[in-house]
Amino acid sequence: MKGSDSMIKIAIDAMGGDYLCQTTVPACMEAVKEYKDLELVLYGDEKQIKPLLTNSERITIVHTEKYVDMGEHNPVSYIRRNKDASLCMAMQSAHDGVAQAVVSAGPTQCVVCGAHLIIRKLHQIGRVGLCPIVPSYDKRGRLMLDVGANVELRPEHIRDLAYFATTISREILHVPNPRVGLLNIGTEPGKGREVDQETYKMLDEDPLINFYGNVETKDILTSPCDIFVTDGFTGNMVMKTVEGTAKTMGDMLKQEIKSSLGGIIGYLFMHKALKRFKKRLDSSEVGGAMIVGVPVPVVKAHGSSNAYAFKNAIGQARMMVETDLINKVIAKLPKKDEENEAL
Amino acid sequence: MKGSDSMIKIAIDAMGGDYLCQTTVPACMEAVKEYKDLELVLYGDEKQIKPLLTNSERITIVHTEKYVDMGEHNPVSYIRRNKDASLCMAMQSAHDGVAQAVVSAGPTQCVVCGAHLIIRKLHQIGRVGLCPIVPSYDKRGRLMLDVGANVELRPEHIRDLAYFATTISREILHVPNPRVGLLNIGTEPGKGREVDQETYKMLDEDPLINFYGNVETKDILTSPCDIFVTDGFTGNMVMKTVEGTAKTMGDMLKQEIKSSLGGIIGYLFMHKALKRFKKRLDSSEVGGAMIVGVPVPVVKAHGSSNAYAFKNAIGQARMMVETDLINKVIAKLPKKDEENEAL
Repeated sequence: MKGSDSMIKIAIDAMGGDYLCQTTVPACMEAVKEYKDLELVLYGDEKQIKPLLTNSERITIVHTEKYVDMGEHNPVSYIRRNKDASLCMAMQSAHDGVAQAVVSAGPTQCVVCGAHLIIRKLHQIGRVGLCPIVPSYDKRGRLMLDVGANVELRPEHIRDLAYFATTISREILHVPNPRVGLLNIGTEPGKGREVDQETYKMLDEDPLINFYGNVETKDILTSPCDIFVTDGFTGNMVMKTVEGTAKTMGDMLKQEIKSSLGGIIGYLFMHKALKRFKKRLDSSEVGGAMIVGVPVPVVKAHGSSNAYAFKNAIGQARMMVETDLINKVIAKLPKKDEENEAL
Repeated sequence: MKGSDSMIKIAIDAMGGDYLCQTTVPACMEAVKEYKDLELVLYGDEKQIKPLLTNSERITIVHTEKYVDMGEHNPVSYIRRNKDASLCMAMQSAHDGVAQAVVSAGPTQCVVCGAHLIIRKLHQIGRVGLCPIVPSYDKRGRLMLDVGANVELRPEHIRDLAYFATTISREILHVPNPRVGLLNIGTEPGKGREVDQETYKMLDEDPLINFYGNVETKDILTSPCDIFVTDGFTGNMVMKTVEGTAKTMGDMLKQEIKSSLGGIIGYLFMHKALKRFKKRLDSSEVGGAMIVGVPVPVVKAHGSSNAYAFKNAIGQARMMVETDLINKVIAKLPKKDEENEAL
């Protein structure tokens, strides 16, 4: 929801990601240039941020020296013990209503735990989920969740995440009636593990979900679905397989082109086509993964984001505020009490 | 094991696959041309096979009109009720010791069930597994299993499959000391579901397995591992994600090249490089997926195999017989009785 003065204030974990403030600060300056209604609060080390901040219009710094190491192995305990880390302070400001959204390129599990423990989960929803936009190979984005906020999920948790994703798809990606597919090892009903079979039934019967049925992962980039749902273990495996396969194929293509004169000459003629090809695959166009199930938009940018990708992640968070996304989701969620009464 | 006359006899489900005997028959003729020690028995419809069989040297036909439909939904009941289908008869001949291996491009679950119910599982191993060779992007094949013979697996089942794959990797892919990786959502021990955590411990402590540790799927095509293990649901999802991503990227590249004059001219110069690129990704070079855990080599070729791919699947089955693979695996397997005594 926009503030009374119509400005959107976003908390930035300026020290998250592989390049710390080297990328976040230039990204923030680009973002305020692009969006005139944007105010950014950077949480991080003033000594490192200030020299990079050549334009501080609508950008303020809240100083803290502590930040999460990208290799942090124990997110829950870290978040509990380090309330003064840049990530935690950014989350706290969102919890307190000072900021309307949070963006961080910090380690995934820490961002998820931070959102869960500091901002806190919506009581209407069973689990927090991690929801990236799958790169738009056919020029339209698809949502996939959960990709790793939870290792295992029950059918009703997956259904709750599908409610959330349906609203995100409608409001952010402008799909009028988003189709939800269940990732599975075959297309027929009755395929998969017990959890998949039960989830199938639940989604199929739910009037709030436009259920497409099972989707095999060989169709993940070409499926007519707008949303893919599965448990966090499977989603993580699938997401990273797409990532790894795409990267390796890109590297192989480069190798093959460089290994002959014909390849090099050919490249000179077709480098525009190859550039377009790369752009279609580039996840930096898309923004980041959304943390779904908390009352404030939180966007987790890729750890290796460059300034362009991080700026897009800020743009995505801004869009989530502007469309009043979370309240629209909450309005659609079945009331938990009613559901309990019905049992 | 080779027969006394040093010939290798393989049973072919001539009617399996999308193109029935249109591809299997030419493939068989190519295979006997390439391997002088090969005898093939084709199970299928004589009326359809004979007109295609222009060279029947070392090729015989056993006639049956029945064959499995590629869309068969109930494999277990189908196999039980249709002993006279070409697939079942080929399996039966391997069970009876008439043939030393089986090759089929029929529907995966039917081939798995056929091997399990007709040839029957080795008693030393807990579950039958499906084990493809992941296309050799970096010019070496890797094994992955289980990719769908079982939906769920217990840690000891995954370990048994790892024993099998270790011997296959050594004997067929000539890797002296194959490294086994556990597919997981992170590299540190303790990652994943309970089954993954227990499997990690079991593999780590096993002296017969050269355990590498957890492998994330973003590294699936570049990992130093020779073997990936996981349960059948996850393996299936990952395998099909690789397949789908590679195919979509190839299609996209073609689109981009065709969409501009520079792209077309460039293609003329670099089409050799692009052809090499395609060849590196082509699973038809590799052969098929092996059914692991039965006493006879069974190779499941891709349903859409062309003659070249099906010939390579026959070559793979022949190699498994020639290297006496199954007996080498059995010799390495811990005796189940000894294991029980140790408990």
